[in-house]
Amino acid sequence: MSASKSPNLREHRLGRLYPLLLEQLPKDAIITATEELHAYECDAFTTMRQLPLLTVLPDSIEQVQHVMRCCHTLDIPVVARGAGTGLTAGSMPVENGVLLGMSKFDQIHEIDPHNRTALIGPGVRNQAVTDAAAPYNLYFAPDPSSQLACSVGGNVAENAGGVHCLKYGLTVHNILELEIITIEGERITLGSAALDAAGYDLTAIMTGSEGLLGIVVAIRVKLLPKPASARVLLAAFATIEEAGTAIADIIGAGLIPAGLEMIDQTGIRAIEELMHAGYPVDAAAVIICELDGSEAEVEDELASVISILKRLNASDIQVSTNAEESRRIWAARKAAFPALARLAPDNYIMDGTIPRRALAEVWTRINELAEEYDLPVVNVFHAGDGNMHPSILFDSSDEDQHQRAFELGTRILELCVQVGGTISGEHGIGLEKINQMCLQFSSHELSQFHALKAAFDERNLLNPGKQIPTLARCAEFNAMHVHHGEMPFPHLERF
Amino acid sequence: MSASKSPNLREHRLGRLYPLLLEQLPKDAIITATEELHAYECDAFTTMRQLPLLTVLPDSIEQVQHVMRCCHTLDIPVVARGAGTGLTAGSMPVENGVLLGMSKFDQIHEIDPHNRTALIGPGVRNQAVTDAAAPYNLYFAPDPSSQLACSVGGNVAENAGGVHCLKYGLTVHNILELEIITIEGERITLGSAALDAAGYDLTAIMTGSEGLLGIVVAIRVKLLPKPASARVLLAAFATIEEAGTAIADIIGAGLIPAGLEMIDQTGIRAIEELMHAGYPVDAAAVIICELDGSEAEVEDELASVISILKRLNASDIQVSTNAEESRRIWAARKAAFPALARLAPDNYIMDGTIPRRALAEVWTRINELAEEYDLPVVNVFHAGDGNMHPSILFDSSDEDQHQRAFELGTRILELCVQVGGTISGEHGIGLEKINQMCLQFSSHELSQFHALKAAFDERNLLNPGKQIPTLARCAEFNAMHVHHGEMPFPHLERF
Repeated sequence: MSASKSPNLREHRLGRLYPLLLEQLPKDAIITATEELHAYECDAFTTMRQLPLLTVLPDSIEQVQHVMRCCHTLDIPVVARGAGTGLTAGSMPVENGVLLGMSKFDQIHEIDPHNRTALIGPGVRNQAVTDAAAPYNLYFAPDPSSQLACSVGGNVAENAGGVHCLKYGLTVHNILELEIITIEGERITLGSAALDAAGYDLTAIMTGSEGLLGIVVAIRVKLLPKPASARVLLAAFATIEEAGTAIADIIGAGLIPAGLEMIDQTGIRAIEELMHAGYPVDAAAVIICELDGSEAEVEDELASVISILKRLNASDIQVSTNAEESRRIWAARKAAFPALARLAPDNYIMDGTIPRRALAEVWTRINELAEEYDLPVVNVFHAGDGNMHPSILFDSSDEDQHQRAFELGTRILELCVQVGGTISGEHGIGLEKINQMCLQFSSHELSQFHALKAAFDERNLLNPGKQIPTLARCAEFNAMHVHHGEMPFPHLERF
Repeated sequence: MSASKSPNLREHRLGRLYPLLLEQLPKDAIITATEELHAYECDAFTTMRQLPLLTVLPDSIEQVQHVMRCCHTLDIPVVARGAGTGLTAGSMPVENGVLLGMSKFDQIHEIDPHNRTALIGPGVRNQAVTDAAAPYNLYFAPDPSSQLACSVGGNVAENAGGVHCLKYGLTVHNILELEIITIEGERITLGSAALDAAGYDLTAIMTGSEGLLGIVVAIRVKLLPKPASARVLLAAFATIEEAGTAIADIIGAGLIPAGLEMIDQTGIRAIEELMHAGYPVDAAAVIICELDGSEAEVEDELASVISILKRLNASDIQVSTNAEESRRIWAARKAAFPALARLAPDNYIMDGTIPRRALAEVWTRINELAEEYDLPVVNVFHAGDGNMHPSILFDSSDEDQHQRAFELGTRILELCVQVGGTISGEHGIGLEKINQMCLQFSSHELSQFHALKAAFDERNLLNPGKQIPTLARCAEFNAMHVHHGEMPFPHLERF
């Protein structure tokens, strides 16, 4: 954690900003004491920390507008924060910048069962939306592992996914309308309460923009009818290859499971030790497959999946017979990252997403790279949609390990890009993966991102330095990176 | 149709552009003869016409890059055109501008059954993708009525929908990756072959941008597994209210039909006269409902829907028993607009989309407005997703009728905005609905659109004057419009 390197700038900004903020915010909505500011110095990517200039906790749209106008007038950067569960330092403060906490925007304004929508504040927890919709037999589909704690505003910022996004899409597919405040303090509406909107798709551009384009103050989410039936199946395999083929064959049979996950042996054992969910600890890999729909449909699909699994020598096939059993299987899967955290001091989680057909090839290659770099890599991932979460276990206090973990991570993401995939499926880029953006995008593409950013925030005050690297940064990173002797932009050759 | 009002400018531009184009394009890819240019003077919104300066028909990405560089260098506007089936003059040329025809980009480069994707040129016809995917039991979901003729590039430009987008989404939900050429002639990739991509969602922003941001030269679309079973049901109602309640109750029961349509009596009769599909001509309204999935699922859902329909006194319930019968019911529905074209010389088709709960209220109000303006309005629409297509029948040679039709259309779209909806669901804005954009968006919102446009096309050379009205244009339109005494931007009050 670094304190301000420019104490004079800090004092100067505080002196001007604080009285201005007080014109429309109560004193207790502004935090300046260092000991209290520590609560805001990082998100769940705790290896990067930075104290903000101050933290504001507005509780009305007008207050957010005032904060933005103050910062715009004084040229002070602003970083928005939801619940702080992000994994890529996206809501880590910037030095001498304002941290804008949106936790007080936690109201569910409306549940509309007929339109199947809910209008909520960005500080509402993901699970709270589903809970509020339950009496209408509806739910909010995105379900990141952190869903008990994470806010929907954060889900929008990162375009969060979850174990069910194979069938039900990412956050962007489950929201209709956003009310945002621009850096100038203007209030604008993106999208509409209907299923489409005229003009450019600003709702989509805002989703996943990691707080770089505007501050979300209200969200209209889609709700889905709860499927009449949902069964979760867990199957063990003696080899990785058979598990990979099972994934391919399930998809190839035209089935669209609600979730389709894969976990390797290290992952299984770590989870089982923490959660005691009955996972088969001797298997090389397990897959988890959820089927949902009408009773008849689920029975039908279950039979198809089981016949595929048996053909591929799956053992220990467990099928949930009630909601509680399903919950238990999923709860264990969702505890994967806490479980891995017990295996090593640090865990570098990749979020590369690849075309499904490349799964087996990439998995094999990752294991080879893990040997090359002499670091354990655990694979726990959303196999159905190709969203891999290889996790590199290491000890950051060992400088050599730290360096190897970083290089290995870069090689893995490079691999994802090489097969036509992407360096981030659902966790975002933040500050943690910003160099790896240089692997994926050409300078023309990065320039287009910067131009778009400038169309919303000309002076680069919103979450500056995150998500989109400067061309200079990429030149430096690629110069370093060329040592591996690989082509930085293979995807340009694809068409 | 207007010829150039500035013959000198025309000659000047032709003299500079033509030799420059010839440096990299063959002579027969450049059309300058007026009689041949007439083929490009309008899209399917034939009441607006404009001859281009010239038409180019490139057949390679390099040629498109060259055209863009030439136009950028010489400051000449460019309008891209797919199959010309658009309904809002989106691909109508601009005066003394280039018309860029993409029809030669009609190759299907790859069908990848394992990833369920196809890589195609923008000139490929919508139906051709589904035909090419059929051997793998896959299909391309967006199915606008014009799917036999329209190009997928045009689908991307307009974010096209169709009768199945209730369950399977609009074009934006069915594409993964776009290769585009910027106005500077740079080639950039948006999205990825995986299910997500890092950075801002430029794929979504490009989809529905009506050729204002870049030229699409390659598209990777998602393919879906063909459902094992699909049944189409047609039911007649003696009152509009019962039909509306049936729609609400089907959705309220937690069903998500593949398609859910509603047609009023005038629409039914026009369709039946043209198509002889067995539609019940004495009904006040019919609804068409398609259910798809596994055999068991479809039977299950069919039973639920039929019980809802019977409770609401539906008569003449027909259920297709094979693919041919389903095709017949849909073919008739898709011929609705040609059928209506036989009823009056002109047909002003609205594309307003509203939150589903407001359907009955809006329908009633539209009928009141139709009486007030003394013009027939036919309702044929995608009821399940709230995408209304009220069609105003009139004769444009009668100046008074023309004026009334335009005002009535504006009132209808205003109504859509007032209930939280949007002025366009799937047809786009083009030039035809550009004034009505002023009903929906505040000046801050329009300014944000313009800033975004400038981030891609600073000099406003790509399809200038379409889709996003200038603030001056809106000031003029709203000044005229305030006579109705209604608030122009009610949606700002919603949160």
